[in-house]
Amino acid sequence: MSRAPAIPRSKTDDYTSDQARERREFLRVQTGAELSSAGSFSVDPQQLRGNIENFIGTLQMPLGVAGPLKINGEAAQGDFYLPLATTEGTLVASYSRGMRVISESGGCTTAVARHAMQRAPVFMLDSVLTAKRFGQWLEQNMTSIKAAAEATTRSGQLIDVEQYLVANMVYTRFNYTTGDAAGQNMTGKATFAACEWIKANCPFAPNYILSGGIDTDKKHSAMNMIRTRGKRVIAEVTIKNEVAKRLLGVDTQTLFRARQIANAGSIQAGSAYNGPHSANGIAALFIATGQDEANVAESHAGIAYTQLLDNGDYYWSVTLPAVICGTFGGGTGLPGQRQSLEMLGCYGAGKSDKFAEIVAAVVLAGDISLGSAVLAGDWVSSHEQYGRNR
Amino acid sequence: MSRAPAIPRSKTDDYTSDQARERREFLRVQTGAELSSAGSFSVDPQQLRGNIENFIGTLQMPLGVAGPLKINGEAAQGDFYLPLATTEGTLVASYSRGMRVISESGGCTTAVARHAMQRAPVFMLDSVLTAKRFGQWLEQNMTSIKAAAEATTRSGQLIDVEQYLVANMVYTRFNYTTGDAAGQNMTGKATFAACEWIKANCPFAPNYILSGGIDTDKKHSAMNMIRTRGKRVIAEVTIKNEVAKRLLGVDTQTLFRARQIANAGSIQAGSAYNGPHSANGIAALFIATGQDEANVAESHAGIAYTQLLDNGDYYWSVTLPAVICGTFGGGTGLPGQRQSLEMLGCYGAGKSDKFAEIVAAVVLAGDISLGSAVLAGDWVSSHEQYGRNR
Amino acid sequence: MSRAPAIPRSKTDDYTSDQARERREFLRVQTGAELSSAGSFSVDPQQLRGNIENFIGTLQMPLGVAGPLKINGEAAQGDFYLPLATTEGTLVASYSRGMRVISESGGCTTAVARHAMQRAPVFMLDSVLTAKRFGQWLEQNMTSIKAAAEATTRSGQLIDVEQYLVANMVYTRFNYTTGDAAGQNMTGKATFAACEWIKANCPFAPNYILSGGIDTDKKHSAMNMIRTRGKRVIAEVTIKNEVAKRLLGVDTQTLFRARQIANAGSIQAGSAYNGPHSANGIAALFIATGQDEANVAESHAGIAYTQLLDNGDYYWSVTLPAVICGTFGGGTGLPGQRQSLEMLGCYGAGKSDKFAEIVAAVVLAGDISLGSAVLAGDWVSSHEQYGRNR
Amino acid sequence: MSRAPAIPRSKTDDYTSDQARERREFLRVQTGAELSSAGSFSVDPQQLRGNIENFIGTLQMPLGVAGPLKINGEAAQGDFYLPLATTEGTLVASYSRGMRVISESGGCTTAVARHAMQRAPVFMLDSVLTAKRFGQWLEQNMTSIKAAAEATTRSGQLIDVEQYLVANMVYTRFNYTTGDAAGQNMTGKATFAACEWIKANCPFAPNYILSGGIDTDKKHSAMNMIRTRGKRVIAEVTIKNEVAKRLLGVDTQTLFRARQIANAGSIQAGSAYNGPHSANGIAALFIATGQDEANVAESHAGIAYTQLLDNGDYYWSVTLPAVICGTFGGGTGLPGQRQSLEMLGCYGAGKSDKFAEIVAAVVLAGDISLGSAVLAGDWVSSHEQYGRNR
Repeated sequence: MSRAPAIPRSKTDDYTSDQARERREFLRVQTGAELSSAGSFSVDPQQLRGNIENFIGTLQMPLGVAGPLKINGEAAQGDFYLPLATTEGTLVASYSRGMRVISESGGCTTAVARHAMQRAPVFMLDSVLTAKRFGQWLEQNMTSIKAAAEATTRSGQLIDVEQYLVANMVYTRFNYTTGDAAGQNMTGKATFAACEWIKANCPFAPNYILSGGIDTDKKHSAMNMIRTRGKRVIAEVTIKNEVAKRLLGVDTQTLFRARQIANAGSIQAGSAYNGPHSANGIAALFIATGQDEANVAESHAGIAYTQLLDNGDYYWSVTLPAVICGTFGGGTGLPGQRQSLEMLGCYGAGKSDKFAEIVAAVVLAGDISLGSAVLAGDWVSSHEQYGRNR
Repeated sequence: MSRAPAIPRSKTDDYTSDQARERREFLRVQTGAELSSAGSFSVDPQQLRGNIENFIGTLQMPLGVAGPLKINGEAAQGDFYLPLATTEGTLVASYSRGMRVISESGGCTTAVARHAMQRAPVFMLDSVLTAKRFGQWLEQNMTSIKAAAEATTRSGQLIDVEQYLVANMVYTRFNYTTGDAAGQNMTGKATFAACEWIKANCPFAPNYILSGGIDTDKKHSAMNMIRTRGKRVIAEVTIKNEVAKRLLGVDTQTLFRARQIANAGSIQAGSAYNGPHSANGIAALFIATGQDEANVAESHAGIAYTQLLDNGDYYWSVTLPAVICGTFGGGTGLPGQRQSLEMLGCYGAGKSDKFAEIVAAVVLAGDISLGSAVLAGDWVSSHEQYGRNR
Repeated sequence: MSRAPAIPRSKTDDYTSDQARERREFLRVQTGAELSSAGSFSVDPQQLRGNIENFIGTLQMPLGVAGPLKINGEAAQGDFYLPLATTEGTLVASYSRGMRVISESGGCTTAVARHAMQRAPVFMLDSVLTAKRFGQWLEQNMTSIKAAAEATTRSGQLIDVEQYLVANMVYTRFNYTTGDAAGQNMTGKATFAACEWIKANCPFAPNYILSGGIDTDKKHSAMNMIRTRGKRVIAEVTIKNEVAKRLLGVDTQTLFRARQIANAGSIQAGSAYNGPHSANGIAALFIATGQDEANVAESHAGIAYTQLLDNGDYYWSVTLPAVICGTFGGGTGLPGQRQSLEMLGCYGAGKSDKFAEIVAAVVLAGDISLGSAVLAGDWVSSHEQYGRNR
Repeated sequence: MSRAPAIPRSKTDDYTSDQARERREFLRVQTGAELSSAGSFSVDPQQLRGNIENFIGTLQMPLGVAGPLKINGEAAQGDFYLPLATTEGTLVASYSRGMRVISESGGCTTAVARHAMQRAPVFMLDSVLTAKRFGQWLEQNMTSIKAAAEATTRSGQLIDVEQYLVANMVYTRFNYTTGDAAGQNMTGKATFAACEWIKANCPFAPNYILSGGIDTDKKHSAMNMIRTRGKRVIAEVTIKNEVAKRLLGVDTQTLFRARQIANAGSIQAGSAYNGPHSANGIAALFIATGQDEANVAESHAGIAYTQLLDNGDYYWSVTLPAVICGTFGGGTGLPGQRQSLEMLGCYGAGKSDKFAEIVAAVVLAGDISLGSAVLAGDWVSSHEQYGRNR
């Protein structure tokens, strides 16, 4: 079997434009594709060390701005202009419309309810009885385990260790606060240290795997929905009926009735989110701000909850139990990504709760806009008849 | 209440560099953020019409290349070099390692098992009995409904209409083939035409909402996992024990035992995917090739399945039931995105199955690499003891 | 290792009172337990052949009656008195209260929306490509497969065969109508015959397992929720505000607001049913009528859906996608169980849809009663304040 | 609208045979059904007070015995004979076969890993910010809340209160140990007292509903799977290849390969349990011992986990995260039900862990038997060919 040629590696391991050009030329020969766009980058390749390997240039995502979005949150307060990177037409316009509704309703309220990033090692014992005893030993030795874990990091703190016994194994979740970083690497390093301490000191001498699969990293799961991965964050707004009719073309009672129908559909489908579309705004904002785009998988899950008030106003909220984000580390320091964070006043230390609240507010805006658009046509025209049927 | 200033709109509705500069300047004044990186774009703004609103420039994602990856698929055949856009260090290197394992094992086999994109209107009737009769009427009038839907599109075909009665409503899924486009818009337009035909011709005069929530667009769901949204695609490879030990540092029996543990963890967690991490590769490849990045939500779900063969070889597969992708329309025509598709020989007509197979092959490569890395450390060193216990 | 003594088996394999006594005496010696209650049975042991092995007597479940319950269904029409076997105090009284609300509201409407019992063999091929071709072969040979399956049964008909490709395997669901039997055995026998025909005639010579686990027999699953196992059945009623206030002590608006809260909780919990408690009524009715009590696992899943109408009336419905029941075979012919079915006019041929509709109506009654009871206390007293908060 | 006649109520509210006869006579007139079997009961009606209303007699379930089953558990130790109430033929015989395999393998090991019964009130606040502050207040006042709850019960203790913020609400789970009772009523009463204390003392003056739906009582849920409702209990056994071949007709390697296939099917189906059939044994044992039969809904969920050992032995386990059972209260005191518990040495105080372990052991036995039966036919005969394919 003949082998396809390997991608050129540089001898010096430098991140240079020459390296990138050499690889693009190699690819042109191998595949026939011109990669001129990848080569038209403005970032200094040296800045990409730690963010990419086999660097060939950059991919340019269209960047638009939505807003202003008024937020009266615990950490996020003010009028925000949102950088959104997407190739889906109407996305920015639709989110902007929702943001206008929120702002004209006096703004939305936001808060982070929980913060826990984890690594989830599994420990293998010789029987369920030993596994149970090992679990008890873990609890009794939490002070030492915490010390071993926290010795590896300045900003992370081990909150607790959840246990789930399955067969003769103890699946755990080591839950950490991680400062302003998303924290997957930090928690991996700290948990490895804790596991090695356990292995060296525990009389049951358990073997372990650093991830037993209940983290669940970059995967939607009931576990993350319930126990949180990253931040559990909520945004809420009360929309005046007048604003809904004027800006969305649909009254609040119609919106509320349609919500019941969407909820039933969502339950029938077994959907990870019962609102219209959390993933659109999250993906566009994540890409624009250097978040890990794969975390859309966990972050898009959530609960849309509304109530129609006696005065006809409409309470609308989104609860996102597992938003993974950071304002430090990862891709946040790259030039464009950093500037996007700076637009939000969210770059650097002490900003991650603020950023998470903005994420929830953006999702709320998108849901208001799309959730109304689907109704503003035939639904309204037939509302009278519908009312009769019910 | 004072209002924050609106984002400048151009009088001419042109996509120009001047417009983008004006908005960046506005944002600099409002937020204090310099947006120099966004302004350093090489794409012609005119090309972005239909992909973005309130255009301020581009966001540059680092672009690396992984491979070669040998695929012996139904549609994808050959050695591929993969463009991956990400800010997560080690991602490209790790996927490359997995691709080498696959290639040295003779390549992976891939196939698309099902293709169905949908819009899912819900019809509201006055009672469950009428709803049931309406459902029967739908079946009896499928020829006309199909004609009404297909009159709106050249490439889409209505396969069937699934029905789910809930209360006095009929939730439907209008399933289409969509040629080489992902097809969300095409199916929306066709289904709207079908619904209007139904409303005009059905004696039960149902009201409807164009989406009843069981599509489930840009959301993971059991429905998509079971009924497919986009393409159901599979990749499989048989890895020699010698290759695993040499390239991954772990033998196949250890890999297989760890798979049982990961499966149990995944079931405990209620995870959308029981393999290590489908979302990473999907997100990086989607961004590089102009796919809708929000579709990572549906696309990352799936089933990792392996068997240890009598000769010690290791059969490893991934099944992804809801990969949303296209090689035509959306962001695929933008310069950098198109060039990425051209690298894969996947730009344009007749290429979407090939591209979907490549997606599955990439996920397989990433799982092989990460799934082994987590074991190559302490697991192996403790294998003897572990072997004793179990 | 000494072994505990084996349970006595009769030489004649007869079902006699003497056999049962002998075993009870054996158990008394072994365990010290008197089993006088088990011995006080009135059923003729000969009738139990085919329903139990190692017969020692009967277990007496308290039997109460609830109703009358007015049903204006497709198959069930009239005022019904419900036999409920349970040991949970208040269950019968609470269901009776809900039935009175339904009856005073003019009765509930019911219908069976789908009927499909299945056996789900998995076929193992040598690669995903062969698996795909095998799937196509299955479709092309449906006429012969249907003939092979239906040759084994008088009442069952093979509707269709669903396919789910995973790796190099084809998971199928052979869907049948099963007349008035629940049909698990009938479908097993028919599917076995079909599989043997396939194995003998298919050029791909697949191996198979008669159940690949997607049936999913006696287990709740998303698959059953979506694709139905047994009968998908719906009950609905419109409750007057006056009736709610008088009989339930709570007005319809309060009920509706609480429903939103319960829906959000149900989504947070990932619950198989978003109403108050379907399993109670199903279990009590199943035991009383000789259904397989383990099928509570599938049957209790469902969707509670309500709307508050403009006039203050309250539309309340339950949709149960996977009710497993029969009026023929299994335990339905035992004396007490048969008499319970006779109370409902549901014993024997042509009655299974009627019975399924009654099941849904009973669930609706129980939800109305319990869903109101939880609110009639503090909720109402604090309603004014609650209204202010919102 | 004419009304159907009401069920006769006694003037004295006594539980007497006369009352039951009067109601049966009423039902005979109304429905035409003879209820002679219901009338042939041996239990003293006075004993049924608190277990049933509108008493008409008893339903006789066939009762068989399976075993002996050797258990070397933490709480359950010895050889057990299992009372199983069912109408499904072969169930007792099949479970007996599995018990013999376990016993000849030296017995199974069992343990209860967690115990928590709950009531789950939801508190409604005026905004997400107040909800968050209320959550903090809850934590700060746990000592008083615990005192208020525990004042209502002798055997229950409040372990902790989990919080899940959704919108402007705090969903809680009040987790209790409940001694030997299943504890649903005990926890309801205690939590009501705690809620009233909160309402009287909390400055945020929250309204609440005693159940917000995340309990989730008598419903399968991800929440119960993860956080436990009742007892999390595990049973494991290591089966010799020789025993498997002799008693089950299938070797351990075949069993293990089939497990991979069943796991993949279970993930595809989104099944609440990935083993063959937990519900059968649970339902039959629950009915026989006076458990609440509706709790099969929660209790049947779980994880089957196996490993093939180097020596060819087969480690097989079941983990049931939410087994609801008690040995005190409810139906456990009725004559037949109590005698069943006495057969197991499980009646009364200090026995509930022992009983839960027996439940898990019974499920393990049933899975071993059915999981093998489905393979012992064609699978084995075709094993050589299958081996070739792989």
